[in-house]
Amino acid sequence: MVKIILHGCNGKMGRMITEIVKCDAEAAIVAGIDTYTETMNEYPVFEDIKTCDVKADVVIDFSNAKAADALLDYCEEKKLPVVLCTTGLSEEQLESVDKVSQKIAVLKSANMSMGINLLLKLLKEAAKVLAPAGYDMELVEKHHNQKLDAPSGTALALADSMNEALDNAYTYVYDRSQVRKKRDGKEIGISAVRAGTIVGEHEVFFAGTDEVIEFKHTAYSRSVFAKGAVEAAKFLKGKTSGMYDMGDVIAF
Amino acid sequence: MVKIILHGCNGKMGRMITEIVKCDAEAAIVAGIDTYTETMNEYPVFEDIKTCDVKADVVIDFSNAKAADALLDYCEEKKLPVVLCTTGLSEEQLESVDKVSQKIAVLKSANMSMGINLLLKLLKEAAKVLAPAGYDMELVEKHHNQKLDAPSGTALALADSMNEALDNAYTYVYDRSQVRKKRDGKEIGISAVRAGTIVGEHEVFFAGTDEVIEFKHTAYSRSVFAKGAVEAAKFLKGKTSGMYDMGDVIAF
Amino acid sequence: MVKIILHGCNGKMGRMITEIVKCDAEAAIVAGIDTYTETMNEYPVFEDIKTCDVKADVVIDFSNAKAADALLDYCEEKKLPVVLCTTGLSEEQLESVDKVSQKIAVLKSANMSMGINLLLKLLKEAAKVLAPAGYDMELVEKHHNQKLDAPSGTALALADSMNEALDNAYTYVYDRSQVRKKRDGKEIGISAVRAGTIVGEHEVFFAGTDEVIEFKHTAYSRSVFAKGAVEAAKFLKGKTSGMYDMGDVIAF
Amino acid sequence: MVKIILHGCNGKMGRMITEIVKCDAEAAIVAGIDTYTETMNEYPVFEDIKTCDVKADVVIDFSNAKAADALLDYCEEKKLPVVLCTTGLSEEQLESVDKVSQKIAVLKSANMSMGINLLLKLLKEAAKVLAPAGYDMELVEKHHNQKLDAPSGTALALADSMNEALDNAYTYVYDRSQVRKKRDGKEIGISAVRAGTIVGEHEVFFAGTDEVIEFKHTAYSRSVFAKGAVEAAKFLKGKTSGMYDMGDVIAF
Repeated sequence: MVKIILHGCNGKMGRMITEIVKCDAEAAIVAGIDTYTETMNEYPVFEDIKTCDVKADVVIDFSNAKAADALLDYCEEKKLPVVLCTTGLSEEQLESVDKVSQKIAVLKSANMSMGINLLLKLLKEAAKVLAPAGYDMELVEKHHNQKLDAPSGTALALADSMNEALDNAYTYVYDRSQVRKKRDGKEIGISAVRAGTIVGEHEVFFAGTDEVIEFKHTAYSRSVFAKGAVEAAKFLKGKTSGMYDMGDVIAF
Repeated sequence: MVKIILHGCNGKMGRMITEIVKCDAEAAIVAGIDTYTETMNEYPVFEDIKTCDVKADVVIDFSNAKAADALLDYCEEKKLPVVLCTTGLSEEQLESVDKVSQKIAVLKSANMSMGINLLLKLLKEAAKVLAPAGYDMELVEKHHNQKLDAPSGTALALADSMNEALDNAYTYVYDRSQVRKKRDGKEIGISAVRAGTIVGEHEVFFAGTDEVIEFKHTAYSRSVFAKGAVEAAKFLKGKTSGMYDMGDVIAF
Repeated sequence: MVKIILHGCNGKMGRMITEIVKCDAEAAIVAGIDTYTETMNEYPVFEDIKTCDVKADVVIDFSNAKAADALLDYCEEKKLPVVLCTTGLSEEQLESVDKVSQKIAVLKSANMSMGINLLLKLLKEAAKVLAPAGYDMELVEKHHNQKLDAPSGTALALADSMNEALDNAYTYVYDRSQVRKKRDGKEIGISAVRAGTIVGEHEVFFAGTDEVIEFKHTAYSRSVFAKGAVEAAKFLKGKTSGMYDMGDVIAF
Repeated sequence: MVKIILHGCNGKMGRMITEIVKCDAEAAIVAGIDTYTETMNEYPVFEDIKTCDVKADVVIDFSNAKAADALLDYCEEKKLPVVLCTTGLSEEQLESVDKVSQKIAVLKSANMSMGINLLLKLLKEAAKVLAPAGYDMELVEKHHNQKLDAPSGTALALADSMNEALDNAYTYVYDRSQVRKKRDGKEIGISAVRAGTIVGEHEVFFAGTDEVIEFKHTAYSRSVFAKGAVEAAKFLKGKTSGMYDMGDVIAF
């Protein structure tokens, strides 16, 4: 059982984590930190992290960059491992994170989803086996119609993961409509679908002679990141100092 | 039960039709026509269509443009409806087809697959209902790595079918990677995947608020066209003169 | 533009409808009714429907059975069409609904989703074309791990829709593991997957010779029902008295 | 480049292997063995393996149990590694295989497909990560309407692979329609779809909170087994004596 202090407990992600932990026998939130304290929580909430005197195993942070300095000071002082999910930290703050990680365990990841991090690993293995045997690799991602960029950062991360396993010998192709020619064996096609309110789907195909192997990840809401943070907290309990990421959580 | 003369019975498509009819209690091949007569067929084969004196209900033609003139003469003389699947007819021949169709029933279609023709029809209905309600439309097609063009002709036909139902108010978008902007409501995204030996897959998505409706067609071999031709023959038996297409076969 | 009175505006579904209407230029909520009035709404909220004097075109009701009598009285008196989404009405109340529908337009449907109602219609057409041509029909549905019944009511409704189009000649098969025999042509296989928090997926397959045609509906949240209710309201504006359902909304 | 003797070169699988090797720069067939020698092959064909004096690196065998004894004698004598794909060997013959594998490299596998063997491995890894984190596991397989058994042997092998990674703590559920209860966490649901001429599809789902990770294998023809045999031959060239399987081919 891991005892968690939830930093940013009354934000959108904080509330998601609270819901997820309720159904998880191996985790409990023992205290929350939030500047907004008017909601009724089932655990004590502190406006200022410095005043929090509850004993815990790990801190999960889904707060904001402004609150990061006080958080890091607190974790260092209390020797508390921390799952750091706040984005937009300054260069200076990232340096602090590095420094603090020499004293305590810090986990930080580009994508907190268990599934995507597992796929990043499994796709490497699949690419090493299938690409040399002549299987073509293609990727289709789908997101909502408000998304500005295409393809998604996660799609590129998945493609990079396969490409790295193959000495980066592959180039990415985003459009086949402007040329009239056969597919080159050393390419990874990446297509982006934009429609409705789709939260995020990523499909990777390996196609050989009369055979297709497909890996697909579907996120139905942002709570997949909350779920990943809770698993990260379980993993981080009792870990020695150092920088960790979600790849460590799913390693075995 | 429809009695079929199979014009081009020993080519690849002819043999597929022969196999399919074997398992179909409502159809029988009573004679074949082919310049190649060395194979053992379970029905009489004539080298020259003029010498064929077997009584039949319909001719299915999967031959070549060169043989089309004699075929049309024969069908006109015998008052035989004909399913015309030969491609590459000359302008002159196409005019003959039109003229002959004033005397006998002629069926001709860009795509002989039952499934694709059904989708062409159902997608029109879906587009009329869902597009005005704000659902986005997107299309993904997948074909083998030897295909030269992208997107496929069938993908464009499917998109056209939806677009026509909506007063052609939509534009097609093949690549989203070169711009950084939100999707326009009046576009249909079309993505092309090329990999392995995939025979042909077409997926159409309608995505609204937290909802996706998907239509998918998968061809596992070219025998879907043979199957379509047999259904067309059943439909054409006893029909009066005129030009028909697969849309008529699946209408009801 | 349809002006809506939202009966049950501060419940879960009421709030979803409020969000959806915000993004819809053709609809506006002009008043809400709810016993809970402490939330800040962007439209006037009345605790008692009798006191609501705002002019509107349609009422959408996502309230509860207890509130239904006053609602029906109000709609009858004001000659207001009503989209009735409350479930669990008593026999007596259902009779009142029938009676009221002789004076005003009432829309009531087992499933308010646009997509499912569209599929109910399109599957009938597909079944009529494909089943006689020898295509097999199968259905797979997926729901969360807390669902008690299997298959889902919607899965059965979809199967019934196909079966009705085929003179109810088909039987449903839920398990193939206990026998060792070939599939019978006159059956519809129905499989139920239970896993995670899946909101609801329904896939229908028509498979013939080397060809599969697939229809798939995915709900990402219950807001698909809210969306359907708004479309129903647009449809109902200005309609004459009578009972309507979602099938009418998607007809054209 | 691996030089292959193809034992059973004029059977269905033999001809598939011949086609695949034509397009593979790293493999060549240097001789074939078949009792049927009337076809024109692009390599010398011997009726009796004993008379074959062509130098090779590996034998691929897609023959029959009757021919296995002479094959094993030949491979042992010539010190030739052998990919053994013939099924239905007697107990006595299986013992011979074991004995011979002490002198030469023998590769034998329940399923020769690269993709399925890769999935057997990756699913173990996925199960170890996701199942303890509360993800539910479900499997859907699809095959043609002539298949007698359900679920498929491959579906069971995939489920076993996950279950073994989890100390065989899971039970398999084939039908949910006969009970009215919530899913048990320690079960793997297995559904079988039977329709049309589907060659073989296997989908495995891991579903957690608002997230689904899916692994899917599609075989479009039996040539996936031919392809696997060729890859096995490449792998086996120069290997020391012992029993190998497809798991070794895809290990790295």
